[in-house]
Amino acid sequence: MGSRLETNVAYIAGFLDGDGSLMLQIKKRCDNGRPRFMATICFYQDTHHDKSLFWIKDILGIGYISKRNDGMTELRINGFKQIEKILKMLLPYIRFKKVQASTLLKAVSLLQRKKLVTNDYKKLVDYMLTIQSENYSTKKKRTKYELLKVLGLTP
Amino acid sequence: MGSRLETNVAYIAGFLDGDGSLMLQIKKRCDNGRPRFMATICFYQDTHHDKSLFWIKDILGIGYISKRNDGMTELRINGFKQIEKILKMLLPYIRFKKVQASTLLKAVSLLQRKKLVTNDYKKLVDYMLTIQSENYSTKKKRTKYELLKVLGLTP
Repeated sequence: MGSRLETNVAYIAGFLDGDGSLMLQIKKRCDNGRPRFMATICFYQDTHHDKSLFWIKDILGIGYISKRNDGMTELRINGFKQIEKILKMLLPYIRFKKVQASTLLKAVSLLQRKKLVTNDYKKLVDYMLTIQSENYSTKKKRTKYELLKVLGLTP
Repeated sequence: MGSRLETNVAYIAGFLDGDGSLMLQIKKRCDNGRPRFMATICFYQDTHHDKSLFWIKDILGIGYISKRNDGMTELRINGFKQIEKILKMLLPYIRFKKVQASTLLKAVSLLQRKKLVTNDYKKLVDYMLTIQSENYSTKKKRTKYELLKVLGLTP
């Protein structure tokens, strides 16, 4: 890896550790279909200074930027394959969200398999619990039972 | 600069751009003496994840860590000479707080002179205004007139 790219990637890892999030969520479908998993890497910055997010988007070559109505701008990266690529690049430089990052990486590799069995879903629930226990959040967290229930995996 | 140190410094620059502050303030003295200038570099993290701040402190070899009572921990670096050293190191990698960083660097070099004349104080006020116009803050900002007044430089 060239030195300039390497310092850019280290910089982005620092930015993510300082003020970003790594998320793995279950989204219910409107049509009562099987719930789907959503993986997200998100960078935030107040809208007055959101140039940084456009630069990160350019360097990573991926993501969507949106202005929230609370004065913040988000750069959001979704998609299992894209997240896998970005995490593999950032992981050597991430220091403090290492557990979340490596767990999310395991999840997105699993989620790219053609067919998932019950055991895979149970693994994904464990990954979600690991990631959410590392994330600091004011929102109420779902319990393992609640997550399994959404997936129809309770006894 | 060795590659490991270089990526560490780029990482810290990213962390600062994501969630840090650069400040130049005037502090009134209790004893009615001449107000003094204070330069600060500050890194924040919620207290649950403040390991990052201890690591940054170790790498930079400087700073004070304190827990605030709102669940946040701060790493605070003060001192003109120390700030000058740190900013010179970080500046090549800082991307979005570059104006604040280079202005604060000019201020701390000036503040290390043995004797400051009126014109220097006026320059410092301009540096403060530049830095505060770049910083996003919910606090009311002081005007140029108010700053000059604190320093006894109004006509």
